[in-house]
Amino acid sequence: MSGNTFGKLFCVTSFGESHGPAIGCVVDGCPPGLAIDVSDIQRELDRRKPGTSRHVTQRREPDEVEILSGVFEGVTTGAPIGLLIRNTDQRSRDYGNIADTFRPGHADYAYEQKYGLRDYRGGGRSSARETAVRVAAGAIARKWLRERYGVVIRGYMAQLGEVEIPFVDWNEVDCNPFFAPNAAMVPQLEDYMDTLRKSGDSIGARINVVATGVPPGWGEPVYDRLDADIAHAMMGINAVKGIEIGAGFSSVAQRGTEHSDEMTPEGYVSNNAGGVLGGISTGQDVIVSMAIKPTSSIRLDRRSIDRSGKPVVVNTHGRHDPCVGIRATPIAEAMLALVLIDHALRQRAQGMDVNSQTPVIPRLSPDGEQSPPAPTE
Amino acid sequence: MSGNTFGKLFCVTSFGESHGPAIGCVVDGCPPGLAIDVSDIQRELDRRKPGTSRHVTQRREPDEVEILSGVFEGVTTGAPIGLLIRNTDQRSRDYGNIADTFRPGHADYAYEQKYGLRDYRGGGRSSARETAVRVAAGAIARKWLRERYGVVIRGYMAQLGEVEIPFVDWNEVDCNPFFAPNAAMVPQLEDYMDTLRKSGDSIGARINVVATGVPPGWGEPVYDRLDADIAHAMMGINAVKGIEIGAGFSSVAQRGTEHSDEMTPEGYVSNNAGGVLGGISTGQDVIVSMAIKPTSSIRLDRRSIDRSGKPVVVNTHGRHDPCVGIRATPIAEAMLALVLIDHALRQRAQGMDVNSQTPVIPRLSPDGEQSPPAPTE
Amino acid sequence: MSGNTFGKLFCVTSFGESHGPAIGCVVDGCPPGLAIDVSDIQRELDRRKPGTSRHVTQRREPDEVEILSGVFEGVTTGAPIGLLIRNTDQRSRDYGNIADTFRPGHADYAYEQKYGLRDYRGGGRSSARETAVRVAAGAIARKWLRERYGVVIRGYMAQLGEVEIPFVDWNEVDCNPFFAPNAAMVPQLEDYMDTLRKSGDSIGARINVVATGVPPGWGEPVYDRLDADIAHAMMGINAVKGIEIGAGFSSVAQRGTEHSDEMTPEGYVSNNAGGVLGGISTGQDVIVSMAIKPTSSIRLDRRSIDRSGKPVVVNTHGRHDPCVGIRATPIAEAMLALVLIDHALRQRAQGMDVNSQTPVIPRLSPDGEQSPPAPTE
Amino acid sequence: MSGNTFGKLFCVTSFGESHGPAIGCVVDGCPPGLAIDVSDIQRELDRRKPGTSRHVTQRREPDEVEILSGVFEGVTTGAPIGLLIRNTDQRSRDYGNIADTFRPGHADYAYEQKYGLRDYRGGGRSSARETAVRVAAGAIARKWLRERYGVVIRGYMAQLGEVEIPFVDWNEVDCNPFFAPNAAMVPQLEDYMDTLRKSGDSIGARINVVATGVPPGWGEPVYDRLDADIAHAMMGINAVKGIEIGAGFSSVAQRGTEHSDEMTPEGYVSNNAGGVLGGISTGQDVIVSMAIKPTSSIRLDRRSIDRSGKPVVVNTHGRHDPCVGIRATPIAEAMLALVLIDHALRQRAQGMDVNSQTPVIPRLSPDGEQSPPAPTE
Repeated sequence: MSGNTFGKLFCVTSFGESHGPAIGCVVDGCPPGLAIDVSDIQRELDRRKPGTSRHVTQRREPDEVEILSGVFEGVTTGAPIGLLIRNTDQRSRDYGNIADTFRPGHADYAYEQKYGLRDYRGGGRSSARETAVRVAAGAIARKWLRERYGVVIRGYMAQLGEVEIPFVDWNEVDCNPFFAPNAAMVPQLEDYMDTLRKSGDSIGARINVVATGVPPGWGEPVYDRLDADIAHAMMGINAVKGIEIGAGFSSVAQRGTEHSDEMTPEGYVSNNAGGVLGGISTGQDVIVSMAIKPTSSIRLDRRSIDRSGKPVVVNTHGRHDPCVGIRATPIAEAMLALVLIDHALRQRAQGMDVNSQTPVIPRLSPDGEQSPPAPTE
Repeated sequence: MSGNTFGKLFCVTSFGESHGPAIGCVVDGCPPGLAIDVSDIQRELDRRKPGTSRHVTQRREPDEVEILSGVFEGVTTGAPIGLLIRNTDQRSRDYGNIADTFRPGHADYAYEQKYGLRDYRGGGRSSARETAVRVAAGAIARKWLRERYGVVIRGYMAQLGEVEIPFVDWNEVDCNPFFAPNAAMVPQLEDYMDTLRKSGDSIGARINVVATGVPPGWGEPVYDRLDADIAHAMMGINAVKGIEIGAGFSSVAQRGTEHSDEMTPEGYVSNNAGGVLGGISTGQDVIVSMAIKPTSSIRLDRRSIDRSGKPVVVNTHGRHDPCVGIRATPIAEAMLALVLIDHALRQRAQGMDVNSQTPVIPRLSPDGEQSPPAPTE
Repeated sequence: MSGNTFGKLFCVTSFGESHGPAIGCVVDGCPPGLAIDVSDIQRELDRRKPGTSRHVTQRREPDEVEILSGVFEGVTTGAPIGLLIRNTDQRSRDYGNIADTFRPGHADYAYEQKYGLRDYRGGGRSSARETAVRVAAGAIARKWLRERYGVVIRGYMAQLGEVEIPFVDWNEVDCNPFFAPNAAMVPQLEDYMDTLRKSGDSIGARINVVATGVPPGWGEPVYDRLDADIAHAMMGINAVKGIEIGAGFSSVAQRGTEHSDEMTPEGYVSNNAGGVLGGISTGQDVIVSMAIKPTSSIRLDRRSIDRSGKPVVVNTHGRHDPCVGIRATPIAEAMLALVLIDHALRQRAQGMDVNSQTPVIPRLSPDGEQSPPAPTE
Repeated sequence: MSGNTFGKLFCVTSFGESHGPAIGCVVDGCPPGLAIDVSDIQRELDRRKPGTSRHVTQRREPDEVEILSGVFEGVTTGAPIGLLIRNTDQRSRDYGNIADTFRPGHADYAYEQKYGLRDYRGGGRSSARETAVRVAAGAIARKWLRERYGVVIRGYMAQLGEVEIPFVDWNEVDCNPFFAPNAAMVPQLEDYMDTLRKSGDSIGARINVVATGVPPGWGEPVYDRLDADIAHAMMGINAVKGIEIGAGFSSVAQRGTEHSDEMTPEGYVSNNAGGVLGGISTGQDVIVSMAIKPTSSIRLDRRSIDRSGKPVVVNTHGRHDPCVGIRATPIAEAMLALVLIDHALRQRAQGMDVNSQTPVIPRLSPDGEQSPPAPTE
């Protein structure tokens, strides 16, 4: 119940600092009988790991995961699954100069105020390095969701700075370093990032994530609604400042006749709800969008104070992502997977027997495989 | 741990349906020694209750609260506080016709799929009537936060449909039925709603909430960050589709030099962070914005299906809010109070002794009393 | 998560003081579709209520329960069930004299130290009156367990003071005021209590509870073992000082060849385990025994101190149970039901599909219907 | 919230199997600023580790712990503490023959029924090897309790089989392999165990644990009472079948005048309560006693069945403790420490400010340093 456990039934307990010996987690509550191999997890970690293109941090971490428990003869046993990733490239000298300085936009001051001290090496616990363990745990969750319910979770970059990226094709997403669903945009994105990197500044991004195949009935009103738990998960990712479900902020200026999704015997005719009504999944695609702020570690000078309250000028050299949003897609997918499996298990606990659920509405969604509605357009 | 308890240490467990005998809650974990009178709670309930203007539902509910336990000789004892509000105006005949029909934009179908049955009277458990108990519990939380830490929580309507409402003065908020911080805008808002109501349609809104006086150090990384828990709380309010903290979605197109809030010996020079960094409060105002969708209960015809899957036409007469956002401000304030008190207690549990916290940065915020930055402008 | 919620998935949140306006609870997580009538709950409350014989307190409380929510057209909806019991016979004058005195054996001093103040009327929150809501919630749990799994939960008094009560017949239990499974012993017990009552003193008791029909597989190692959660539940009943599962303290002097229960194709040949191994149910009867201390409210003089630390002499007139163990049987049954339903739901969440469980051992237990082994003999 | 996390605020999440690559845990919620060195933890692990005398299992595990996170420059940071212990001596060949057999008294059958499969190597997750991580986590808890509140936690063996061990001196406890507080008894205990070991049988034991210096006010009624949480913790230790607090089962035959502990200006005159009243600590010693069953792994023949339901004869050669109670003392101490720190933090969260607590009763206990009352005599 302290802040490093995620989930109520599928529980991920995370540990580790950016520059400590290791990061890792314990996944407790995984149903038994799921075939899991290290490669299932490593594949997802490799999508997130640093150093894969010139547009992300050049820190070299292989992010190799070791399964310490909970898997026997290739399948989960129901016992907690210990996952371990050793840190290998933690050049602490890069960070020694920030021990007494609070970097603007970073959590330095907040951590110091909360705990009275902080592990300042590379941001310590507040580093986005921790998100690797979310991706690792999420890999288990998404495999179970796919095998047990046919749920597929996919994300993409929808906007880089002021550049909107029209959705074209899911197949493009893993073919470029931006997770852009649009091959034609990639040269523009590369130019954008090259220019930005040279300027020493950083930029924000918007990431969308979509889960297809979610059966109706997941979500626990009135407080642990599916959308509320998704918002909790996504806002809990480093650098996220905004969350939308379905039509999101566009709802503000919509009329009821425009927003509410009509139903027909053939299915829903729109998906402004983003797949959730009353906090419960409706059988439509679950659609989430999030805003990611620009990296606070930049080479340009910024004003700040040190621990004694004196003014200082801060700039950050070393290895940083000029757009943390670029590597955020696998993390957002993982967090959605963790929310969904948790609610799948919660529904199994209290809900009707799954077999007796007979959806009277066809599960057909108006949005086909290749065209998730960009939630806020 | 089921979905009707909010909070980890200051726990609100809610019960009750729109047209059952009563709604209420149990508040567990309230510190002892807080002076609480029924009037402290009733005052907040009266701000949310229906029937106070022509722009909201005409259901007549006095929403009179009874304290059943946990208060002795006028102060809290540390024992759970039972709160009860009897329903008095539940004309079930208004709703009988929806027993076999799934209303578009409502949770009818989702509830039926989840539980196999539903209390269809007025939306049953999914009705926004439940939010009264949040306001009641929140009244206790905000009183404690104010007395113990000087925290003040205030919200307002920032946009009604396409009409933006510039912030002018907190004192205006409680002087009009819209919670608009701008007296000059009120006639326009009234006209807008009158026209809308005659049309039979409904509209969305944007609500902002600001907490001042939050000390640095609240929030529990990495999963129960303060902003993550706020997002959970706000997205868990009926009809909310989007959440922003600080700069929110504006962050997407911001550069690092623009977004990250510089610090000086005199304080922060901006508040794009919205008072939270790394999931921990920074001492600045905590600023939240949310999108509220248009009411799904409208008089105009909408296509849907019935429980047998046959097409039907649905329209909803009876007593409904044409803009649920109008009454949402007290609810959003209450939820923010519930998140903050929970994290105050969590910080007391694990954190440094409060008395040893010596903020080196003056708590002065660049945003003065009268000008909270509209988060996304 | 504060201390007044019991259970992780079937959650009972209790409120109310002995001499406040009401006691009650919210039952969250109850599966939908269970037929529940007020009489189902009232029947169990009537077994526990005061004033039913001369051997228990003469306080007159009808303990009439009102269902406030969560039940629609006679069945549970999956929404939280609010239960309310008004206090009707709270003669506060009986207790005014203890406001400044700490009664020996009572929680007065502990409450004052914990909270800095206390509701001293009749013990306030520490009164065993609160156990009525456990019985009410337990009535729902046991009905579901019986209907869904065939689980039957029964308790009895096994010892009153130094008088052991040999088990004879379950049918006797509800035919005498002691819940004694032995009609022949009742006159002796009545004499015992009459003599005791005249003396002004009080006495302890031992209560056994047995659940039959529990399927194998319930319990969540390594910390939330079924027996661990039972111990938590039972030690959480007022006045309980000891708990045994199966052979209990007899295990200390047993050899492995005596203790471990051999298995044959026809079933187990003994039940020293008490139905739990490794923290998981085995399919045998779950057998629990508990020690209940003598009431601390007695007419005889006892030394104590007042709030200023000065010595005082305390004696308690008024209406008290000379043996709280007499009314403890329904409470212990209720708590066992609450633990079992919670673990039934937890097993549904994570475990194998129930239908695929094929116990290879016949569920036959060596202990027949009429002869639960007295656990510690 | 799954079963492998212990505690609500000081949370220990355990993982690992007897014969997997490692065991370990994550300790989340530890207050920052506690000086912790590997040696603080290793010292306690060494007390529990196997192979230290001829009376325990000869498995050779150094149980060397690695701190993976949460400690920086020698002190805790408030971030989760990852602890890792590699398994080094897991001769799986010892256990291959039990893959298809359910050993009597073991959890084999229960695990198989729960999860549909099991890691049969050395008992897998059900092995008492897991208790090493409890001892490791408990080492952190007890250090904090001692430094912050002066709480001292000590345990001892009170009975081995039918041999009662009178308490003489705490200083003896760590001077013999039995944790016996009585040097004179050690030769008799050694003879007892030598004879037993030769016979191939096993035996039970009773362990007592005492916490001194616990301030009044810890414990969260009505469900998470201090004694209830202690019972949960102790019954959750492998092989425990009974728990007593204070007078325990002796309470059954006590009268109120005998049981309830009188108070005087000089302190309590007895401690039948075992330091807990109404579920809250009273300032007296917290006294717990537990029954540990005989090891189920014995060389002698026992009847059982295999996975196909056919009768088999089981006997267990290999490396086993003939009395698991011998190594249980450090485990019981650790679990008591985990319960106490959790309640210390819970009290800090909700309760009065510690500094304002002014116990009116002197904290003097009638039981001096050298003579804890054997709880059930």
